[in-house]
Amino acid sequence: MRTFKLTIAYDGTAYAGWQVQCDKTTVQGTLENAIAQVTGESLRVLASGRTDAGVHALGQVVRLRTESLLEPDVLLRAINANLPQDIAVLEIEQTVDDFHPIRDVVRKRYRYVIHDGPVRDIFQRRYAWHYVRGRLDADAMQRAASAFLGKHDFRSFESTGAERLTSVRTVYECVVERGEPFEQGRGVQQIFAHPEDFITLEIEADGFLYNMVRAIVGTLVQVGNGRRPEAWPGEVLSAIDRRRAGPTAPPQGLFLQRVKYGLAPS
Amino acid sequence: MRTFKLTIAYDGTAYAGWQVQCDKTTVQGTLENAIAQVTGESLRVLASGRTDAGVHALGQVVRLRTESLLEPDVLLRAINANLPQDIAVLEIEQTVDDFHPIRDVVRKRYRYVIHDGPVRDIFQRRYAWHYVRGRLDADAMQRAASAFLGKHDFRSFESTGAERLTSVRTVYECVVERGEPFEQGRGVQQIFAHPEDFITLEIEADGFLYNMVRAIVGTLVQVGNGRRPEAWPGEVLSAIDRRRAGPTAPPQGLFLQRVKYGLAPS
Repeated sequence: MRTFKLTIAYDGTAYAGWQVQCDKTTVQGTLENAIAQVTGESLRVLASGRTDAGVHALGQVVRLRTESLLEPDVLLRAINANLPQDIAVLEIEQTVDDFHPIRDVVRKRYRYVIHDGPVRDIFQRRYAWHYVRGRLDADAMQRAASAFLGKHDFRSFESTGAERLTSVRTVYECVVERGEPFEQGRGVQQIFAHPEDFITLEIEADGFLYNMVRAIVGTLVQVGNGRRPEAWPGEVLSAIDRRRAGPTAPPQGLFLQRVKYGLAPS
Repeated sequence: MRTFKLTIAYDGTAYAGWQVQCDKTTVQGTLENAIAQVTGESLRVLASGRTDAGVHALGQVVRLRTESLLEPDVLLRAINANLPQDIAVLEIEQTVDDFHPIRDVVRKRYRYVIHDGPVRDIFQRRYAWHYVRGRLDADAMQRAASAFLGKHDFRSFESTGAERLTSVRTVYECVVERGEPFEQGRGVQQIFAHPEDFITLEIEADGFLYNMVRAIVGTLVQVGNGRRPEAWPGEVLSAIDRRRAGPTAPPQGLFLQRVKYGLAPS
């Protein structure tokens, strides 16, 4: 039996989230089926955390324990050949037997993309929240976001229903930026016809509570649209009361960007 | 009766191309249906040119002649409200009655995106040709592409079946570039996890023959993969013989980027 660390990406649009559910198509179930095609094993994989329906991943980490004797690169190609086009294994490496993809997380990084242009961006409709009530003040959102830095009890930004020992988390980075126009005629990013119509939040922490990023985004948007002052998100945080936060932002703008483990670069 | 110039974008994935066909869903038919919902008119619109099934547009231009008395911005919002999420009207402006979107074209610009990374990019699967036979030499393709600059008979790069008076076209720009890595943590383009795995061709001309861009891309790829020397695309061009060119590249990498008319900036 060997233990592998898989880094996978998925477009969450077509899935009822990560976690296996008996009557729905999930990313986990689809990945396990692809692995079964390759190794013949009916097994369960374990991810660094669940993602909700419609949420995407650029670098989800999944533990695979298998009896298969295939070389890692052969395993990667074989699993990818059995996956649909909206899930891909990006990397695979053998790791220690006691690797635990939830317990051993050191940092996680999410990004959330908001589109506040007047006309929908048809190529980003599955990958951004189209905010249609006017322009958001990204600079004010960035100033307000600094309240989240450091070690806090984030219970105000947690949806109920998740198991966790504590709601204290440490946020290492929380940056809100408006996308900048790109030089004409360069790079593949030109598919963003109006990059200045996009606002991106990137947040890195030692862990996240259930729906924490989407609640933080929904709260910062109340500052961006001028309904709340810049100091308000900090007050919501201090209140330790879920009813104080803004509405939860929709799933399609959210990406699990990467998960870091231990001291090794990953 | 007023004449409007509409600039529209569409994701061609779900459509059997631009042009109305009785038994298939097309971009033109879908747009005409949306306009009918708004103005009550059963009318035909005219585009700067057809696009094939699976081909996208960032800035297709469409002529609309309507009896509607709605203001342009009201018309834009109303049509967009009746369009599906994969088609959008970006701009609308009233223009002269004798505006002809095909005859009056001064320049058209297309882009074509190739992904030559080893693992598929799940977020770009509808918007790039995944070339799986190894790394392409983008610099060699760029050098070979210079043969297309200027006024030539492009019959070697034309699929049969299209009506046109002449197969002579003038290419003003033809640039092949590998996408460059972006600074970490900046901008919405981070969804391209490996921008260095993308090659983009941008080509601008006074007009294009049927399938010309895709035939040019298919021919340049034969240089990029080392099967043909850099001088070969120029030889194919001089031969004025369709059988000499490389295979036609698939549609999903192709974008109609913009169409220019007259002297006014557009």
